[in-house]
Amino acid sequence: MSELRWDPLKLHWVIIATERGRRPRDFQAEPQEKEVASCPFCYGNEDKTPAEIFAIRPSGPANSPGWKVRVIPNKYPVLRVEGEVKSKGYGVYDVMSGIGAHEVIIETPRHDQGLADLSPSEITDVLKAYRTRYVDLRRDFRLRYMVLFKNHGIRAGATLAHSHSQLIAVPLTPPVAATELKICREFFESKERCIFCDLINFELESGSRIVKEFPNFVTMTPYASCFPFELRLYPKKHSHDFALMDDAQLGELAIAMKDMLLRLKTVLKDPPYNFILHTAPPRQPRLGKPEYWGSIEYDYHWHIELVPRLTQIAGFEWGTGFYINPTSPEDAAAFLREADI
Amino acid sequence: MSELRWDPLKLHWVIIATERGRRPRDFQAEPQEKEVASCPFCYGNEDKTPAEIFAIRPSGPANSPGWKVRVIPNKYPVLRVEGEVKSKGYGVYDVMSGIGAHEVIIETPRHDQGLADLSPSEITDVLKAYRTRYVDLRRDFRLRYMVLFKNHGIRAGATLAHSHSQLIAVPLTPPVAATELKICREFFESKERCIFCDLINFELESGSRIVKEFPNFVTMTPYASCFPFELRLYPKKHSHDFALMDDAQLGELAIAMKDMLLRLKTVLKDPPYNFILHTAPPRQPRLGKPEYWGSIEYDYHWHIELVPRLTQIAGFEWGTGFYINPTSPEDAAAFLREADI
Repeated sequence: MSELRWDPLKLHWVIIATERGRRPRDFQAEPQEKEVASCPFCYGNEDKTPAEIFAIRPSGPANSPGWKVRVIPNKYPVLRVEGEVKSKGYGVYDVMSGIGAHEVIIETPRHDQGLADLSPSEITDVLKAYRTRYVDLRRDFRLRYMVLFKNHGIRAGATLAHSHSQLIAVPLTPPVAATELKICREFFESKERCIFCDLINFELESGSRIVKEFPNFVTMTPYASCFPFELRLYPKKHSHDFALMDDAQLGELAIAMKDMLLRLKTVLKDPPYNFILHTAPPRQPRLGKPEYWGSIEYDYHWHIELVPRLTQIAGFEWGTGFYINPTSPEDAAAFLREADI
Repeated sequence: MSELRWDPLKLHWVIIATERGRRPRDFQAEPQEKEVASCPFCYGNEDKTPAEIFAIRPSGPANSPGWKVRVIPNKYPVLRVEGEVKSKGYGVYDVMSGIGAHEVIIETPRHDQGLADLSPSEITDVLKAYRTRYVDLRRDFRLRYMVLFKNHGIRAGATLAHSHSQLIAVPLTPPVAATELKICREFFESKERCIFCDLINFELESGSRIVKEFPNFVTMTPYASCFPFELRLYPKKHSHDFALMDDAQLGELAIAMKDMLLRLKTVLKDPPYNFILHTAPPRQPRLGKPEYWGSIEYDYHWHIELVPRLTQIAGFEWGTGFYINPTSPEDAAAFLREADI
C-alpha cells in the first residue's frame, strides 16, 4: 500500500507510491509514451482494462464497445480504496495510509481525437461523467477531496495518447485547495462577498486579460500567471460546487471548454497541457451523516485551471515558490483572443 | 522593468519578466540548448559577457583569461538593480517593481567539466565565490533574500552547457523560505531547539535514509521526498548562515558536495538536476543599519536541497500541491550508498 508522508518544514504531503516501483534504470533520458500494440482505451479492448465503474453507452453490455465515455479504475493506482485511514507521528514527521481512489475517464472511443476535437455534445458527456463520479465518490466519507485533472501530451505527464482524464480521491484536503478555501472563508467572513466573484468582476471591467466571454462562463489569463498562456475558466455567477451544475449548464460549459482548448491548440500548435477542476470539497464526516451529499463550502467558487507546459520548472521556481513568467498574461490573452478558430 | 505580481488565492508571487519576451512562436516542442558558435563562458571570450563582478583569478587582469571562478551579471536578468522598490494594490491583487540582482557564477573555465568532475579544491573556490557574493549583496537593504541555485542539463532548465550556477536576489522573502523560517522560529519558541537539528538527529539514528556521513556534514534523502532521488546536504552542527562558513568548513563541504554529485551521476547516468542553497536571510532594514551584515535568524539551519529531474510534474501535482513519488527515499538512499564512485 502506498503511504502519505508529511514534511514538517515544507508543509506538504507526498504520496510514496512504490507499487509503481521505479529503480534507477527505469529513469530514461527522455520521457516516452508507453508502447502499446493495441490501445486499451479503444473499442474492442475493453477487457484489457479493469472493469468499468460507469459508462455513457447508447448500446452494448458493460465492458464491450458501444460506449461514448467510459470510466475505469486506474490499472496502476497511486491510492487504493481498500483499508482504513490510519495516521500517526514518526519522529518529526507524520505518516498516513494511502487510502483513496484513482479512476480514468476515457473521453472518447476515437483514438486520434483530442478533447479539443470533440463536439460540444461529446464534451458535455465527458462533463456528465465527471459529475457522476464526483457525486458517487462523495458518499465515501474517508475521501476528503476529489482531484479531477487531465494531462495532455507526453511532456504534460500523459503516458497513453488516447484522450483521457483522471480522478484521484484523497484522504485529506490538498494544500492548494485548503489555501483557497481558507482565503474564501476569511474574505466572506469579513466582507460577505466571494473573493472569486470580486476577481471576476474586476477582470471583466479591466478586460485586458479576458480571452472569451459566454453568457454564463468566462475564460481569462490570470493576473499573476506562473506560466505563459495559463488559463482559467470561471462560471460568472457564484457557484461553489461543480457537481450542482445541471445538464444545460454543462452544455454551455462544454462550449466554453472547446473554445478554450481550440484557441490554445491553434495559437501554440497543440501544446502539452494540464487542467484541473477546482471545486468545494464534500461535507466533512464530523458533521454526521447528512442528507445532502454536496459541499457546504458555499463561499468557494468552482473553476477550471489550465497550464500549458511550455517552459521548464527550474531550480529557482522549485526552491523558492517564486515563478518567473516570460510572457505577460495581457499578451497571452491578446494572442488567444485573436486566434483564428 | 519586470514586475512582481501577487496571487491572493494561491498566496504566491510571480515575476513577469517580459524583457525575455516570449511570443507563441518562441515556444518550441522540445527545450533546446542555445546554439553558441563559441561559448561565452570559456577562456578568451570574456568580452562576450557583461563585465565581471568578482573572480578568483591567479593571473591576468579583469575580464581576461586566467580566472578559476568568474561571477558576471546575467545578460538577460529577470530582476534589475536600478530603481526603487515600489509596491501597491491593484484590484484584488498586489504589484511590486522588479528590483533585484541576477548573477551567474561560472564554476570553471573548462567547457566539458561538470561540477561533479571538479576537484574538491576547485569546488571550494566555487563555494568561496558564493560566500563572497552573498556577503556583498546583503549590503543592499532592498534585497531581502538571495537565491543561489544551479540548473544542470537542459531538462533542468540550463540553457548553456558550460557549468555555472546563478544567484538571484529578490526584494522579498520567497514563500518556501518564509515557511521554513516561520516553522523554525515557532519550534524554537516552544522548545528551544532547532527543528532541523531534531530532524538530522532522528535521521542519523534511524539510518535508512542516510547516503553518506562526513565529520561535519551529512547527505540524506528526505523522508517526504517529492521526487525520486531527491537529496539534502546538511551541516551536522547547528549553523543558521552559510556565509559564516570559514575556508576549512567550505573545504569539507566541497568534499561532501562532490561525493553527492558523483553518486548521483554514477547511479542515474548524469541526470539533469537542480540544487538550491537554503540559508537565513539578511537582517531586515527596519532594525536600522547594523554593524553585523549577517543574518539574525539564528533558529534557522542552512542546507542544500537537490532535485534530480527524472519525472514530469503533471496536473495532479500542479493543481494540488500533493506530490506522487514512485521511488521510496529508503530505496534511493540504498542505491546511492552503494554507488561505485
